[in-house]
Amino acid sequence: MIGPATYFRPEHRAGLDARTRALVDRRDAVLSPGYRLFYEHPVEFVRGSGTKLYSRDGDEYLDVYNNVPSVGHAHPRVTAAIAEQSALLNTHTRYLHEGLIEYAELLLAAFPPALDTLTLVCTGSEANDLALRVAKHATGRRGVIVTENAYHGVTTEIAAISPSLGGVASLGDWVRTVRPPVGDGSAMLQDARTAIAELQAAGHGVAALIVDTAFASDGFIPPSPETRSALAAVQRLVREAGGLVIADEVQPGFGRLGATAGEPSLWGFPRHDLSPDLVTIGKPMANGLPVAGLVARRELMQGFGERVRYFATFAGTPVSVAAARATWEVLHDERLPEHAAVVGAELRGMLDELAARHDRLRGVRGSGLYLAGDVVDAATGDPDERAAVALVGALRERRILISASGRDNAALKLRPPLPFSSADADRFITELDGALGDLG
Amino acid sequence: MIGPATYFRPEHRAGLDARTRALVDRRDAVLSPGYRLFYEHPVEFVRGSGTKLYSRDGDEYLDVYNNVPSVGHAHPRVTAAIAEQSALLNTHTRYLHEGLIEYAELLLAAFPPALDTLTLVCTGSEANDLALRVAKHATGRRGVIVTENAYHGVTTEIAAISPSLGGVASLGDWVRTVRPPVGDGSAMLQDARTAIAELQAAGHGVAALIVDTAFASDGFIPPSPETRSALAAVQRLVREAGGLVIADEVQPGFGRLGATAGEPSLWGFPRHDLSPDLVTIGKPMANGLPVAGLVARRELMQGFGERVRYFATFAGTPVSVAAARATWEVLHDERLPEHAAVVGAELRGMLDELAARHDRLRGVRGSGLYLAGDVVDAATGDPDERAAVALVGALRERRILISASGRDNAALKLRPPLPFSSADADRFITELDGALGDLG
Repeated sequence: MIGPATYFRPEHRAGLDARTRALVDRRDAVLSPGYRLFYEHPVEFVRGSGTKLYSRDGDEYLDVYNNVPSVGHAHPRVTAAIAEQSALLNTHTRYLHEGLIEYAELLLAAFPPALDTLTLVCTGSEANDLALRVAKHATGRRGVIVTENAYHGVTTEIAAISPSLGGVASLGDWVRTVRPPVGDGSAMLQDARTAIAELQAAGHGVAALIVDTAFASDGFIPPSPETRSALAAVQRLVREAGGLVIADEVQPGFGRLGATAGEPSLWGFPRHDLSPDLVTIGKPMANGLPVAGLVARRELMQGFGERVRYFATFAGTPVSVAAARATWEVLHDERLPEHAAVVGAELRGMLDELAARHDRLRGVRGSGLYLAGDVVDAATGDPDERAAVALVGALRERRILISASGRDNAALKLRPPLPFSSADADRFITELDGALGDLG
Repeated sequence: MIGPATYFRPEHRAGLDARTRALVDRRDAVLSPGYRLFYEHPVEFVRGSGTKLYSRDGDEYLDVYNNVPSVGHAHPRVTAAIAEQSALLNTHTRYLHEGLIEYAELLLAAFPPALDTLTLVCTGSEANDLALRVAKHATGRRGVIVTENAYHGVTTEIAAISPSLGGVASLGDWVRTVRPPVGDGSAMLQDARTAIAELQAAGHGVAALIVDTAFASDGFIPPSPETRSALAAVQRLVREAGGLVIADEVQPGFGRLGATAGEPSLWGFPRHDLSPDLVTIGKPMANGLPVAGLVARRELMQGFGERVRYFATFAGTPVSVAAARATWEVLHDERLPEHAAVVGAELRGMLDELAARHDRLRGVRGSGLYLAGDVVDAATGDPDERAAVALVGALRERRILISASGRDNAALKLRPPLPFSSADADRFITELDGALGDLG
């Protein structure tokens, strides 16, 4: 289930230096075997700044992978906000605190007017879990439709709608999958018709369709006029069946995708012409503190709030909110979505140019600073997981951090902190060029 | 479902000062209706220190309620650790970081040797959700046994085992309840026999028994020799049925209960002679940052880790771990479990003395700084929710923070930050005495 070796495996142990080996051994002795380390040769970072991470040895790595520290590692404004609020007060949402209110006002102003109600939680998994609870409560139905390699999180409920974790066999019997919106989108539409019919026949009905608006684990699927109209049709069918539409913006949200139709944009759903009833947000929301949320139409939360007791101790605390607010301000003051659009286009152009020279690289796609490209067998053009994994490892040795993802684990996943510069792009492309050349 | 008025309700709005009313209105406009504020007259806190919270008006409140900032509000060592690590680095567990390893080593040394494997998550709900996932995976069964008014969290899965949220009707069909271990414990034992038989007859089998080791929502039940032997028998029956035992230490853990058999103790399960297979921890773990965890026998995590992909982005990050580590060090350096035992005993003595003078207060119980007492109808001796709620509100006006809990919402819930002093206890008792007198 885990790819050949973007992760450390016990057989790599012999090749490690003494300190790394000792840390790995100590770690293995105390942490669950489920914990995995990146790379055959794991890295120990001790400091970060902007788009750079620094190892214990003092080596500088260019981060083209980490989407959580989205406004840059250890951004001084976020760090200062956390320090200041921690020293002052950190309680919960059952006392009044203006910080929470101000943040909610700022955030909701960036959504369509109908999406007017915020609930904060701590993780993307909790946000999606709550979104499904609300959808099931509001509709009185339990069927859920997801894309065929979707990933939405790790609670029991959300693992049961995440085929990328354990395949279709691991899903709840109230879950149906649809192909993602590729090509003319007709496959997705056809699958959605079948899914709805099956869920209704089984007595589950349709509570919700949930989609990651970057379709990242389904292979980073960009919208086209055809897929937009297919998604609109799927959305209509789901609504006709009494279901709700959930946009999972945990990964694409907060400006990573750069611009939509030439305008800087914070979210992925408008790119697909989706009009969700519920939107989940998380990862980059507080640049690394555990903050996530659910933005919803009020009527959905009204019924839920009246009949269900829901209180999340650690959510919406003054420190969490201070971190989220500072992250929000940096995102806007430093015009990072605009920057992501510009530098992302530049980087994509460079990748296209690289793909023209290297048979191993194809299908460069994505938006803003959320890009992908397939590593393929030069002869057959088929996805080549082994080569992708080798490339990720080779880049680590060149002090560049990326990862591989997608159904075949052969799509390079590029999602650097948003302050990624043209110089960073140059450095990355130089090393990728070299590593592709070495691949043969 | 929500008690009469430990919470703010719209009809209280007219009685508010202008600023509070404006904040409440702004809050209502943006947050889910599920968000609730404490008190008819909500409080706006802007600063905290030790056992005190300070309102915007500059009034000092004594905190006898908040168990999350367990080593004291805004403890300077914890605050400094958060500030320092935030300014340095905050990534995730797929790179090596010695802080995580050191913390896991420290923490596991405080558990019985068999409980040797740590998984970090962000919230108590996630910890219990993961514990059930592991138990179901390890046993191949799905039945879960909980106490009749249990609360374990808010994910879909965990709400389905939390009767205190929505009553027995809200539980999963794979859940059975047992009475808590009161009296000679025979009721619990009898219920457990029935629960196991029913779960087996329904084809669910028994995956786990899960208990909050303070039995807080079941009314704060202290152990006795009789309940200990009843729990031991229940534990044996569960194991004979192939199930696992989960101790939920999210609330009682990290020293709140003071001492067990005269020795300072961090956990609640040894008080009941329980030998859990899985232990969940959370709330006070990082003094307010979202940090929680699952401590388990390695063989359980081995199978789970090999076959299930589980990665929690925000869990075990350098900043989370720095906060947890500093909290741990303060807890030990300031000998807070010992302190909780001593001051808790003092406070309990004062409460007993108060109960002897006020017919309205009975059944003082608990351990360390986790105490309860029932507010009753003086004539009948029955739990009096209305009076309990009035008392909580009256104490808020006297600048003392407590709450009411339990099945009848008539048990006073006392769980102050652990540095609670004898002077704090005096101040609290003086005000409680006055408020009880005013109750009539």
